[in-house]
Amino acid sequence: MLNKQRIQKAQDRMKQQGIDAYLILTHDDYIYFFGEDRYQPRAVIPAEGPPIIVTFSGEEAEVRESIGASDVRIFGSVGQQIKDVVQVMRGMIGNKDKLKVGVQMWFGTPAFLLNMFQKANPIVDVVDIASVMDELRMVKDKSEIALMQHAAVIAETGMEAAVNTLRPGITENEVAAEVEYAMRKAGGHGVATPVFVNSGIRSGWLHGTASDKEIEDGDLVVLDLVPKYKGYCANLCRTFVIGKPNPEQEELFITYKNAQTAAIDSLRTGVKMRDVDTAAKKVVTEAGYGEYYVAGISHSIGLSFEETPAPTIHPGDSGIQIREGMTVTAGHPVLSVPGIGGVRLEDTFHISSGVAKPLTDFPLELELEKYEIEI
Amino acid sequence: MLNKQRIQKAQDRMKQQGIDAYLILTHDDYIYFFGEDRYQPRAVIPAEGPPIIVTFSGEEAEVRESIGASDVRIFGSVGQQIKDVVQVMRGMIGNKDKLKVGVQMWFGTPAFLLNMFQKANPIVDVVDIASVMDELRMVKDKSEIALMQHAAVIAETGMEAAVNTLRPGITENEVAAEVEYAMRKAGGHGVATPVFVNSGIRSGWLHGTASDKEIEDGDLVVLDLVPKYKGYCANLCRTFVIGKPNPEQEELFITYKNAQTAAIDSLRTGVKMRDVDTAAKKVVTEAGYGEYYVAGISHSIGLSFEETPAPTIHPGDSGIQIREGMTVTAGHPVLSVPGIGGVRLEDTFHISSGVAKPLTDFPLELELEKYEIEI
Repeated sequence: MLNKQRIQKAQDRMKQQGIDAYLILTHDDYIYFFGEDRYQPRAVIPAEGPPIIVTFSGEEAEVRESIGASDVRIFGSVGQQIKDVVQVMRGMIGNKDKLKVGVQMWFGTPAFLLNMFQKANPIVDVVDIASVMDELRMVKDKSEIALMQHAAVIAETGMEAAVNTLRPGITENEVAAEVEYAMRKAGGHGVATPVFVNSGIRSGWLHGTASDKEIEDGDLVVLDLVPKYKGYCANLCRTFVIGKPNPEQEELFITYKNAQTAAIDSLRTGVKMRDVDTAAKKVVTEAGYGEYYVAGISHSIGLSFEETPAPTIHPGDSGIQIREGMTVTAGHPVLSVPGIGGVRLEDTFHISSGVAKPLTDFPLELELEKYEIEI
Repeated sequence: MLNKQRIQKAQDRMKQQGIDAYLILTHDDYIYFFGEDRYQPRAVIPAEGPPIIVTFSGEEAEVRESIGASDVRIFGSVGQQIKDVVQVMRGMIGNKDKLKVGVQMWFGTPAFLLNMFQKANPIVDVVDIASVMDELRMVKDKSEIALMQHAAVIAETGMEAAVNTLRPGITENEVAAEVEYAMRKAGGHGVATPVFVNSGIRSGWLHGTASDKEIEDGDLVVLDLVPKYKGYCANLCRTFVIGKPNPEQEELFITYKNAQTAAIDSLRTGVKMRDVDTAAKKVVTEAGYGEYYVAGISHSIGLSFEETPAPTIHPGDSGIQIREGMTVTAGHPVLSVPGIGGVRLEDTFHISSGVAKPLTDFPLELELEKYEIEI
C-alpha cells in the first residue's frame, strides 16, 4: 500500500525546492513509497496530487490492488514505457517553460537510460532528487527498524551457515552456495551485494565475491553478507582463520576489532561521520598499520546497502552528523597488509537514545575451531 | 590473462574512429579483455600501447600475476581511485585539446559516476564505446561458446531443481532458494538477473522476481533463469501448471510454443531481428492473441544477459542482421492475457552453419505432473 505520509513529506520538500515531480526509476524509493517492488519500478510523484504508477498491462490488476494507487498508467510494450512517461510529463507542464524533474543519482540509475529520458523530454530539466529524499530516508521509522532487524537475523543465519561449512579444501563458491541458501530459507529476499567469501590472498581485496579458489588451512577468510528482507538490508562481516592463526593474523584481527569498537563508541548523535573515522584510524595508527587504513569506517544503510551518508562514495558526506533514528554500519573497509592479508569486521547499528545499538549480533572470533566448539 | 588479440582489435577500431581511450567501468568488458573479474572493474585501454589496470593496493600482487598486465596503477583509498584515472587521462593528452574517451553506456554504468568522472576530467569528451565493442562482442569465439554451454547446463540443473520442488503450498521464494542453490552447486557464479518464480496472477508480469506468495494448485508458474559461468550467461525459461491445466492455459501455452518455434526457425544468418519478431507475432495473431504480443522475441546474450542486438532496449537494434557465431535467445517476452495469466518460454542458441543450434535443452511441457513421471 502506498505510504501517504511519506509521499506528503516528499511533496512538501519538492514544493519548497521548486521541483515539479520526482521520476522514480529505482527499487529503493519505489519500495519506500509503495511498500512493494517491481522488476522495473516506474512512477512519478508530482509536487501536488496523487502519484502516478507506470506499469505493464499484465500487471495492472495486481498493481491497483496491492498499491491502492488511484492513477495507474498502463503500457503494453517496452518501447511504450518511455512514451508514457513523456506523456505524463507533457500533461504536467501547464504554462511553464520547463519542468524540473528529480531523478535519483545513485548506482541504480544507468547513464544511458537518463540520456534517453532527457532526449525524449526536451521540456524537462533533470535534477538530483537527493535534496528531497536524503532527509526522509536518513532517519528510519519503527516499521523500517523492524524490517532491518529481520534482515539482521537472516545475516546471522547466513554467517552461521558459513561457519558450519568452512573447512580446508572447500571452494569459496561452495561456501557462498550454503550461505545464500540458508539466508533464503530464513526468509531472505536475495542479497544487496554478492556474498563475499575472500580467502587467503583474496582476503586483502578491497571488495570481493566468491571464486572457485579452494580455502586452505591457515587462510584468512573474509565473509561479508548483505541480505535483504522486503527491500531492507543488514550488513554483517566477519573474518576467520581455518586452524590456528599466526601472530601477524592475530595482531591484525585485534587491531581491527579495537578500531571497530572505537568506531562504535564514537557513533553518537551530533558526531560527524569523519570523527568516527578519526577514532578508528587512531587505533589502527597506534598499532602500526596507519598507512593501510582506508577511510570510510561507517556508512548509512537501509533500503540501499550504502546510502547517505556514504563518505566512501561522496566524500562530502563525511561532514554529516549522526542523528537519532539513523541506521549505520561500523567496520566497512578492509585492513589489508601485504604479506599478511586482510581483515574486515562489520556490523549494523540503530542510533537510539543517542548511541549505537547493535542490530546484527555474531561472535567476534578469529579462530574458527574455537568458535565451532561453542555452538 | 589479458587477451592481446581482443585488445588489438579494440585498439584498431578505436584508432579508426578517433577514440583515444576506452575507460572500462563494467564487469563484462573487463572480463572480455582480462579474463577475470573484480568487484570494481577499472581499467583504461589506450588506442595505442598496453592497457592500464587501476586497482586497490591490497590486490596488486594478485592482479599482476593473474592478468599479466605490465601497467598496473595502484590506489590506496576509494577517493584516490578517481584521481588516479584523472592522472592517467592527463598523461595521455599530449598536445591534444581534448581526449575522446569511450565509456560503456548500458545498465552497469551509473549516471552519477559518469557525471563525477566528467566533472573531474574537463579535458575529456565522453563517447559511447558501443561503436567499438558491439562489433567485437556480437560474434562469439570458441572459448566463449564453451563457457556459455557450461552456463546452459547450469541453467538446466536449476530448472530441474525447480521442477522437483514445485508443489502447491510452497512459496516462490522457497523455490528460488532451491534453484539458486542447485545452480551454485553445479558450479554457477551467481545470476545475471534474480531468479524469476512468477506464479498465478504474477505469471502475467512483464518481468518478475520471487515473492513470498504461495504457489496454488492450477497456477501458471513462469521460471526464468539466467545463471553465469565465468561471467557468461545462458537464459532458460519455462512455464508450468501445477496439476491439470485448464483449456485457456493450454491454448496460451501452445500458442507460445508455436511462436517460439517460428522464431527459432527464422533465426538464420542474414535475417534481421525484426523479421524474427514478425514470424513469432504472426503465430500469436493467428491464434487470436495479437493484441497481447510484446515485441522483442529475441536478443543477443553473452557476457551480459541482454547485449547488442537488444531491440527491447534499443529499438534501432531490430534492423541488425543475424550473423554466424552470434548467441541469441528465442522467446523473451511474456504473453500475458488478463483472466488467464502469462506464459513465457525462452532458450539460448548459437548461430552455427547459418541456423540456430540450441545451447539450452529442457522439455517443453506445461503440465508438471506429466513431466515429473518422466524424470
